[in-house]
Amino acid sequence: MNNNLLQPFLKNGKVLLLAYDHGLELGPETLTGQSIDPKYILDLAVKGGYTGIILQKGIAEKYYYGADYQKKISLILKINGKINVSQSKDPYPSLNCSAEYAKKLGAKAIGYTIYLGSEQEAKMLEEFGRVQERARQLNMAVIAWVYLRGPFIKDEHNPKLIAYASRVGLELGADMIKIKYPGSEEFFRKAVQAAGKTKVVLAGGPKLDEDKFLEIIEVVMRAGAVGVAVGRNVFQNQDPLSMTERIKKIVFSD
Amino acid sequence: MNNNLLQPFLKNGKVLLLAYDHGLELGPETLTGQSIDPKYILDLAVKGGYTGIILQKGIAEKYYYGADYQKKISLILKINGKINVSQSKDPYPSLNCSAEYAKKLGAKAIGYTIYLGSEQEAKMLEEFGRVQERARQLNMAVIAWVYLRGPFIKDEHNPKLIAYASRVGLELGADMIKIKYPGSEEFFRKAVQAAGKTKVVLAGGPKLDEDKFLEIIEVVMRAGAVGVAVGRNVFQNQDPLSMTERIKKIVFSD
Amino acid sequence: MNNNLLQPFLKNGKVLLLAYDHGLELGPETLTGQSIDPKYILDLAVKGGYTGIILQKGIAEKYYYGADYQKKISLILKINGKINVSQSKDPYPSLNCSAEYAKKLGAKAIGYTIYLGSEQEAKMLEEFGRVQERARQLNMAVIAWVYLRGPFIKDEHNPKLIAYASRVGLELGADMIKIKYPGSEEFFRKAVQAAGKTKVVLAGGPKLDEDKFLEIIEVVMRAGAVGVAVGRNVFQNQDPLSMTERIKKIVFSD
Amino acid sequence: MNNNLLQPFLKNGKVLLLAYDHGLELGPETLTGQSIDPKYILDLAVKGGYTGIILQKGIAEKYYYGADYQKKISLILKINGKINVSQSKDPYPSLNCSAEYAKKLGAKAIGYTIYLGSEQEAKMLEEFGRVQERARQLNMAVIAWVYLRGPFIKDEHNPKLIAYASRVGLELGADMIKIKYPGSEEFFRKAVQAAGKTKVVLAGGPKLDEDKFLEIIEVVMRAGAVGVAVGRNVFQNQDPLSMTERIKKIVFSD
Amino acid sequence: MNNNLLQPFLKNGKVLLLAYDHGLELGPETLTGQSIDPKYILDLAVKGGYTGIILQKGIAEKYYYGADYQKKISLILKINGKINVSQSKDPYPSLNCSAEYAKKLGAKAIGYTIYLGSEQEAKMLEEFGRVQERARQLNMAVIAWVYLRGPFIKDEHNPKLIAYASRVGLELGADMIKIKYPGSEEFFRKAVQAAGKTKVVLAGGPKLDEDKFLEIIEVVMRAGAVGVAVGRNVFQNQDPLSMTERIKKIVFSD
Repeated sequence: MNNNLLQPFLKNGKVLLLAYDHGLELGPETLTGQSIDPKYILDLAVKGGYTGIILQKGIAEKYYYGADYQKKISLILKINGKINVSQSKDPYPSLNCSAEYAKKLGAKAIGYTIYLGSEQEAKMLEEFGRVQERARQLNMAVIAWVYLRGPFIKDEHNPKLIAYASRVGLELGADMIKIKYPGSEEFFRKAVQAAGKTKVVLAGGPKLDEDKFLEIIEVVMRAGAVGVAVGRNVFQNQDPLSMTERIKKIVFSD
Repeated sequence: MNNNLLQPFLKNGKVLLLAYDHGLELGPETLTGQSIDPKYILDLAVKGGYTGIILQKGIAEKYYYGADYQKKISLILKINGKINVSQSKDPYPSLNCSAEYAKKLGAKAIGYTIYLGSEQEAKMLEEFGRVQERARQLNMAVIAWVYLRGPFIKDEHNPKLIAYASRVGLELGADMIKIKYPGSEEFFRKAVQAAGKTKVVLAGGPKLDEDKFLEIIEVVMRAGAVGVAVGRNVFQNQDPLSMTERIKKIVFSD
Repeated sequence: MNNNLLQPFLKNGKVLLLAYDHGLELGPETLTGQSIDPKYILDLAVKGGYTGIILQKGIAEKYYYGADYQKKISLILKINGKINVSQSKDPYPSLNCSAEYAKKLGAKAIGYTIYLGSEQEAKMLEEFGRVQERARQLNMAVIAWVYLRGPFIKDEHNPKLIAYASRVGLELGADMIKIKYPGSEEFFRKAVQAAGKTKVVLAGGPKLDEDKFLEIIEVVMRAGAVGVAVGRNVFQNQDPLSMTERIKKIVFSD
Repeated sequence: MNNNLLQPFLKNGKVLLLAYDHGLELGPETLTGQSIDPKYILDLAVKGGYTGIILQKGIAEKYYYGADYQKKISLILKINGKINVSQSKDPYPSLNCSAEYAKKLGAKAIGYTIYLGSEQEAKMLEEFGRVQERARQLNMAVIAWVYLRGPFIKDEHNPKLIAYASRVGLELGADMIKIKYPGSEEFFRKAVQAAGKTKVVLAGGPKLDEDKFLEIIEVVMRAGAVGVAVGRNVFQNQDPLSMTERIKKIVFSD
Repeated sequence: MNNNLLQPFLKNGKVLLLAYDHGLELGPETLTGQSIDPKYILDLAVKGGYTGIILQKGIAEKYYYGADYQKKISLILKINGKINVSQSKDPYPSLNCSAEYAKKLGAKAIGYTIYLGSEQEAKMLEEFGRVQERARQLNMAVIAWVYLRGPFIKDEHNPKLIAYASRVGLELGADMIKIKYPGSEEFFRKAVQAAGKTKVVLAGGPKLDEDKFLEIIEVVMRAGAVGVAVGRNVFQNQDPLSMTERIKKIVFSD
């Protein structure tokens, strides 16, 4: 309940996160070129001036912890996640790291995915409740990925449901939420409004046309986003650093 | 087992609660106009002279805890809740906050929903048993929302079942219960009688015609209710404060 | 493993219990007339000279604990129970009170229902195993309601199954069991024999013709029962106290 | 990991156990004549010179603990078991006693049933893993009943599966296992070989013709069994003590 | 997070492990000839110069712990496993040993199987998360068997899925993973690349033609494997020691 928990991730009051949990969520095929190498990504995050990096436990252990990176870039440890092998109808991201261990690895925040619309929604909400309180005790920020997914969801980008997801993030005690793009500035503004004092970042998603992606970032920043979390749109780009610069201009109003 | 646990919520021995968990239970669309903003609602609760406010964890953390409100209005932390996205046949409100954390946030009572008629009834009853005892250790009041809902329930307002729900509240150790309107003064009186020393408040429910709603409040107060919990019938009203005054006249016999 | 744990419930070596968990198990409609009021029942138990009263947590908290009753009548806290709203095929009585809290409320014994024949039998047996050991640590007697109920049971009064239920009570470590009437003195004797050193009381069941009910009590006392647990056959009687006197004559051989 | 944990059950390096958990597993009908009375069985065990007796918690509490028997015969507390009322397709013996409590009751070993071939196999294996380690901390021997039972098993006496069951006993850390008769000396020898340093006893099973039963004991002792566990073949015998003597001649090579 | 946790298993920076959990996973029939005897296998491991041996709890207790072997060969305790009796569609290896107990038995590493593609994937991932962190506290290495198995898997040797499995090992915090052969050097190299700093060993699998097996070992060592885990290809061989020598030449480049 320390208001400054998000401070390590802010620059000019804004947030630019490099997400790198694709190896777990989507498999190594997603990690094209050098991006298969965690060291390459950590160097990119530092050189690119990102305000935070998102890693799973194993990569944090072997590449971030005890290394120089710890002084150069703030870590969000993603403590749950889903593997894209089993095509079960009801998606469930399992918890694979404790908040305590995330803290030990040097993380300043935990990341947790909630799928609204899953039959296992209740299990995630209970678990989130527990890890949120544990993070409070450890003085860590709590960042929730609140997505619509599961047998009850027809459209993951439904603007009303995305506003609902934002509100759920606030009601459950997230400090920041990562949501999908609901299709327009007005819809994103509604989601930001629903989130109240909980900060909102855009989830970058799959690789888009470069200009199209930048345009969306402009829209969400105007609509009140505190920043964006990018991954494939940067590291699948032919020149990740210059793409990063273009994004920073928008996010940090440099 | 301190008899005065409900004291912080009483005025003239009566209770007037402002419920504000609709963002989680029904989504932000329900929160029309300024009511999307928790600060607006907290100010309304204070100005309106409510004897308690009902919030979920996240809103208590970011708007109530550590703020002036803590001195001005007593908090009931609703520690479980259901999100209205998954249309699963068997409703289940998941626990998202511990009694300990509710206490830390300044709550004087915990609120917990039990759906009688759900296939997961046993899970709720067990969990309620645990949090009720934890609340006793923490010297907090226990307020149960005892509703009829699930595949076995044809009519959520069935008067016999509502009297049964009231009795369950007493048998399980709630200090106060929130029940739906069973349709008549006589039926409400039966429910109050079944609840014994457990206090009964009416659950306001969806927005009704103003006079109709006030008439129901009169009926239940005559029938032995200790008060009402209102939400949409106030904040969806064009003039929430004057509606509040009309309710107070009835509840507190001002 | 203190042999005298049942002592608080004995008079002339016999037991006469007033059961009052119908509000939870069957609903307030069962509690006709004044019996809806727990105070009336507690007074009846004291005046009638019962050797013990059976209550759920909430009623013990609000009417027994800290009151004079605590000196006048011994309490069996029924720590699990089933609500008669959901008509699920597989009956399961959920645990709603801990042995520790039962002790704190002044109980000298815990009561626990086991349904043999339920698909959830294993869950009950495990839970009973745990609470039985907890009761031993707390020096409380353990009383098991061992009933036949569930999809595998055609007749809840099957004498062979009732003898089996009795034996289960002994094998699992109950100090006393409450069983249904198996139809004859000989069958009841078999059940008593199967229970060994575990004491057996008759479960009173639904309201019967007064003489018929007294005759059954005579039969079971001859067959070796240590006593009876009564409820509806007393408090639904027009004159509960004189009915109590008639029962006492048989049970205590007064 | 004390090699002498089985010592209390050995005579001439051999084992003769009297099993008496039939009241739970099969019901009191199995306990013909005086065998319904635990005291009769305990006296038989002492007089007959058995090296151990197998009881469930309740009988150990009320007949063995604190009595003279504790000095005269070593106790194996059977901590899980199945009741023969529900005819569920998937057999599961529920845990009803902790290793700690077994120790307190004077047991020198815990007994645990594993059904290979049940859909709930994994649950038993996990639980066995936990109680095995707890028993190690308490310096108690661990005896596993490893049986083939469930929807995947056509023949509970299949010799290959019985050898597999034996091996499972070794791999999971049992000090002694109780297995069914696989039909021949050669098959039993295979099972003994698969069990390695884990000792093997024959499970007596239902009442057989006296000579037939003794012949099987001769076979298994030749095949490397450390002894037998008997129950119905002794206490359903017209002269249990003389039947015991005939068994002892074979087992102890008296 | 000690970088040298795998040190006890390295020789010339390479690893040669003798796996001996077949008694649990496949049954004693797999353990042909002398290999049924754990002592024979432990002697083979020592004489053969293996850098580690893989055992289940029971065999470690009775043959390794407290014996001379503890000084001669490093132990990987396999803490979960599946029995090949129940043909359930959804494979699940149950946890049968704690990391603490593995440590006590002298293990320098824990081994844990994860089946990607099982409906119970989430349960394994959560459990692995917990034991991985426990192993860190105990300063033990963590070795994951990451296999593709279950209703969603058509081909357990699918090279893309094997690379995915490797990456999962890295992301979840394994120090070393054991994977199946994906069919070619190039595919194995992809898997090694996906695993990053997590070491990769080949799972030997069923008995193959001797030359064919050695050829595969050459391929995987060229592709970046840190070594191999062998079992049936050695102990089912007519001359296990000379087969071991041939393998060592390739693995250690002797």
